[in-house]
Amino acid sequence: MNHLYKINTNTSLKNIKFNDAFNIHSSYNLENYIEISGNLIHITAIVNWERVEIGQGNVIGPYSCIGTESPNISNFSNGNVKIGNQNLICEYVTIHLPTNDKLGTIIGSNNILMSSSHIAHDCILGNDIVLCNNSAVAGHSRIMDCVTLALNSSIHQFKLIGSWSMIGMNTCINKSIIVEPGNIYFGVPAKKIGKNIIGLRRKKITKEQLNNELQLFNTLISNENYL
Amino acid sequence: MNHLYKINTNTSLKNIKFNDAFNIHSSYNLENYIEISGNLIHITAIVNWERVEIGQGNVIGPYSCIGTESPNISNFSNGNVKIGNQNLICEYVTIHLPTNDKLGTIIGSNNILMSSSHIAHDCILGNDIVLCNNSAVAGHSRIMDCVTLALNSSIHQFKLIGSWSMIGMNTCINKSIIVEPGNIYFGVPAKKIGKNIIGLRRKKITKEQLNNELQLFNTLISNENYL
Amino acid sequence: MNHLYKINTNTSLKNIKFNDAFNIHSSYNLENYIEISGNLIHITAIVNWERVEIGQGNVIGPYSCIGTESPNISNFSNGNVKIGNQNLICEYVTIHLPTNDKLGTIIGSNNILMSSSHIAHDCILGNDIVLCNNSAVAGHSRIMDCVTLALNSSIHQFKLIGSWSMIGMNTCINKSIIVEPGNIYFGVPAKKIGKNIIGLRRKKITKEQLNNELQLFNTLISNENYL
Repeated sequence: MNHLYKINTNTSLKNIKFNDAFNIHSSYNLENYIEISGNLIHITAIVNWERVEIGQGNVIGPYSCIGTESPNISNFSNGNVKIGNQNLICEYVTIHLPTNDKLGTIIGSNNILMSSSHIAHDCILGNDIVLCNNSAVAGHSRIMDCVTLALNSSIHQFKLIGSWSMIGMNTCINKSIIVEPGNIYFGVPAKKIGKNIIGLRRKKITKEQLNNELQLFNTLISNENYL
Repeated sequence: MNHLYKINTNTSLKNIKFNDAFNIHSSYNLENYIEISGNLIHITAIVNWERVEIGQGNVIGPYSCIGTESPNISNFSNGNVKIGNQNLICEYVTIHLPTNDKLGTIIGSNNILMSSSHIAHDCILGNDIVLCNNSAVAGHSRIMDCVTLALNSSIHQFKLIGSWSMIGMNTCINKSIIVEPGNIYFGVPAKKIGKNIIGLRRKKITKEQLNNELQLFNTLISNENYL
Repeated sequence: MNHLYKINTNTSLKNIKFNDAFNIHSSYNLENYIEISGNLIHITAIVNWERVEIGQGNVIGPYSCIGTESPNISNFSNGNVKIGNQNLICEYVTIHLPTNDKLGTIIGSNNILMSSSHIAHDCILGNDIVLCNNSAVAGHSRIMDCVTLALNSSIHQFKLIGSWSMIGMNTCINKSIIVEPGNIYFGVPAKKIGKNIIGLRRKKITKEQLNNELQLFNTLISNENYL
C-alpha cells in the first residue's frame, strides 16, 4: 500500500471524537486512512460522495462500498445514504442507495458495522448497534437502538427490530417473528429465548423505559409498513 | 476513485441490454465501470480474462474476483469460467475456475449474484437465478433456472437444485435433502415447507411445465453424479 | 490489473513448498502475486507488515486484510499476528490484531482459509484446518488441528474446538456446546451428531491418539479460560 497521507492526530483531528472501538493511535490506521471532513476513510474504500451525507468521527474501512447502487428490479431513486457520527465501518461493508427519495438509507450514530455486514436499500439504523461479521439486513428494514446482530445472522425485508434486542449467531429473522425490544432471539427460524438481561443491565434500562419503547415499537408496527 | 473513463450510454452501449436490476443511468455506475466487449466491469474488479468466456450485457461489480483459482487439493485444469448475458454480479463475488477441462464453471444468463456470494469450481448455474448476500454454492453443484438462494444460505457440493425453488435465509442444503423444482426449503438442516406458489405464479408456470421439469430433474439425478 | 512482477518459479521459489491447494503454475497466480520473503502476496492484499510475523510458503489472496485493527472496545495491544508456513489464505479474509501483548493472534501451518472467512483478535489456530467461505471465529477462540468449519458456520468467542472435528454448514457453536475432538457438530444451536469417522480415517488417527487428544482438550478447558 502507498502511504498517501499521514494523519496528524495532534492537529487536524484534535477536536473530533471517534468510535471507542477504533484505535486512532494505531500506526496502521494513521497511515492508511485519509481525513475527509472530519471522518477517516481507508484509501481502498469506495464512497459515492455525490449520494452520501455524513457527519463527523466516522471511520470507513478497507474495501467497503458506501452509497453504491442496489441490485434492484423495482425502482431507482435520487435518494441518499445518510450517516450520523462516530460510526465504525470495518472491511467489505456494503451500504446501498435507497429506492425511495423521501427518506433514504439511514445510519444513526455510534454503530459498529463489522466485516462483510450488509445494509440494503432504504434501511434505517438507530444508534449504538453492533452488526457482527456477515450479518445482513434486507431492504426497507429498521433496526432500533442498541441492537446486536451476531455472526452470520439475517433480517428479512420490511422488518422492525426492537431496541436492546440480541439476534443470535446464524439466526434468521423471517417474516413471522416479532422482535420486541429487550429480548434475545435465536434459531432458524428464530424463537424468543428470553429477556436480554445483560444487555438491559449494561445500558441501565428501567422497566418504564422498556415499556415506553414497547409502545413506540407497537405504534411503528401499526402505522408503518413494518412486519 | 479515479474516473478513468466515462461510459457513453448514448453511443457505445446503445444496443446492449443489461440486467433490469442494474441502473445504467446512475452517475456512479457511469463513472466507475469500464466497457469491455459490451460488458461493464468495475474498475476494481479482478477478471482473469485468459480463462473467462463472456457474452454481452454483464456487469461485474466492485472487488469481485471472476475466474481466479479455486483452493483445491484434488485437481487443476485448463477449463474456463463461461458467462452468458445480462448477469448482474455485485460486490465481492467469487466465481472460481473449474477442476475439469470438459465443462467449466458455467453461469447462464440474467442472474443476479449479490454481495459476497460464491460460486465454487465446476458449478453450473441456469438462468434467472438470484443469489442473495453471502449465499455460497460448493463445488460441482448445479442450480436450475429461476432459483432464489436467500441471505446466508449454503449448498453442499454435488447438489442439484430444481427450478423455481426457493432456499430460505440461513438454510443449509446438505447431502440428504432433495431440492425438487417448485418448492420452498428452509432450516438447518433444510426441510421442504411447501410449494413455492408465489414463485410459480410470477413465472406463470403450468402444472405440465412443472411436471416436465420434475422429469428432467429426476433424469439428471439418475444420469449424472448429483446428490 | 497491472502486472507488476512476474514470479519466476524456476529460480526464486524453487526451494519453497506451498500449500497443495495452491496452483503455483497458474498464469493468473504467477502474474498477480508478488514474492515477499518466500511468501506469495496478491497485489491487492493488505498486510500490516509492522505487526505480522510470517514463515514461508504462505499465500495471501485478493483483497484480504491481515493484521489490521480489530473493532474492539475493551483493549488495544502491541501484539502481533503470527503465521506459520504453507497457509493458503484466499479472497477477502480478515485476520485481526490481538488485544493481548503476550500471545498474539496465531495461525499455525498448512491451513486453508477460504473466501470471506474471519479470524478475530487473539484467536489461535493449529495446523491442517479448513475454514470454508464465510465461516467466522469470534475473539479469543482456539481451533485445534485438522478441524473443518463448513460454509457460513460461526464460533462463539472463547471457545475451544477439538482436533478432527467437523462443524457443519450454517452451524452455530455457541457457549454451551462442548466441541470434543473427532466429532461432527451440526445445527442452530449445534448438536453432536456422531463421530467424524471419515475425517479420523483419512488422517489415520488411532483410538489412543484420540484419547490423548481428549485429555489435552480437557486440560485446556480446565486450565485456560475456554468455554
